[in-house]
Amino acid sequence: MRPTITAFANSPDRGTGQARDMRVRWALEEVGQPYDVRLVTFREMKQPAHLARQPFGQIPTYEEGDLTLFESGAILLHIAERHAGLLPTQEPARARAINWIFAALSTLEPPIVEREQADFQAGKPWHSPEYLAFLDDNIRTRFGQLSRRLGEADWLEGAFSAGDLMMVMVLRRMEGSDLLAEFPNLFAYVARGESRPAFQRAYAAQRAVFTAASGQ
Amino acid sequence: MRPTITAFANSPDRGTGQARDMRVRWALEEVGQPYDVRLVTFREMKQPAHLARQPFGQIPTYEEGDLTLFESGAILLHIAERHAGLLPTQEPARARAINWIFAALSTLEPPIVEREQADFQAGKPWHSPEYLAFLDDNIRTRFGQLSRRLGEADWLEGAFSAGDLMMVMVLRRMEGSDLLAEFPNLFAYVARGESRPAFQRAYAAQRAVFTAASGQ
Repeated sequence: MRPTITAFANSPDRGTGQARDMRVRWALEEVGQPYDVRLVTFREMKQPAHLARQPFGQIPTYEEGDLTLFESGAILLHIAERHAGLLPTQEPARARAINWIFAALSTLEPPIVEREQADFQAGKPWHSPEYLAFLDDNIRTRFGQLSRRLGEADWLEGAFSAGDLMMVMVLRRMEGSDLLAEFPNLFAYVARGESRPAFQRAYAAQRAVFTAASGQ
Repeated sequence: MRPTITAFANSPDRGTGQARDMRVRWALEEVGQPYDVRLVTFREMKQPAHLARQPFGQIPTYEEGDLTLFESGAILLHIAERHAGLLPTQEPARARAINWIFAALSTLEPPIVEREQADFQAGKPWHSPEYLAFLDDNIRTRFGQLSRRLGEADWLEGAFSAGDLMMVMVLRRMEGSDLLAEFPNLFAYVARGESRPAFQRAYAAQRAVFTAASGQ
């Protein structure tokens, strides 16, 4: 069954593939599953039709028959369970790969999002160089730990998996920051993920939405 | 196979069951799986033996034969997949329950942890009533959205599932705060989770560690 996902009609990422629909697009491209996209405006995201799909008023969602999912981690796992190519078929390798999906979302992403959101707090009384440096250090701690675990390996657990897909997507939120470049193996890991043909196809697809919407 | 988990030898939660081993203990109690506990000190958590299990120097971990997991979400999912009682056996109900594990960890927990950590930043130049109020409002937004979705239901998707287990554990981090009490159905939802016999057994087990360590 061909799934339908939602994505921003006017993405605040300006076509850089940082919105969370990119995670789902990439996963679907990796497994060769065609999909439809329903674009939603910021206004539509806060209205009942979308809130019935996504109670927190965000994107992406994933609809497939009578199933609706709304967390990118749950959608990725669902796709990986239904198709070959994103998870090892045998335990314990399968559980280890899933562990990295959770690590990306629970351990790496929160300090990165916190730092991103601080950029929207300019002018608030607490916004200061010291505050931003503190948030950067929180990220640096996690990046150092992840860098030591990855070492010289191409991927976190042998072959590329859904765990790497989510981790690359989370790390690349810091793309363009000196912070990621401080850890050359993580920087190369992100580039390795982005060089995959499925990533490239997903990137082009979300980019086309932005280009069309902005008339560029 | 009897798994071994790790937990704090001296938990900073002072036996209130807020440390993340409680999530794993509760899940294991729900499915009736006995387990062993290896207590680790703060010093041990940063040493190579523990970092090999948990690259971010935290607890809990879960060891079962040649499998080691370290994210509470991944451990909960693994337990729920191996035993009856924490996930519906049929799709799409199973995927929906898993979706709530991710929602708890990715959408609800980050703003709560951010607020908790602010309490450790007293004395920092950015720490101010305005800053704390801003963080509280972020939580209030999410609680409002979740409260509307839960409505008058006992659990998020029909029967109690691993998704409720994780959501209750995340929400109860705010126990004792007026913020949770602002949403009576969420408050009652947490109490409903805590009243389960499996929760009570898990709570007593982690409480016993604190009591023994503190000589109380």
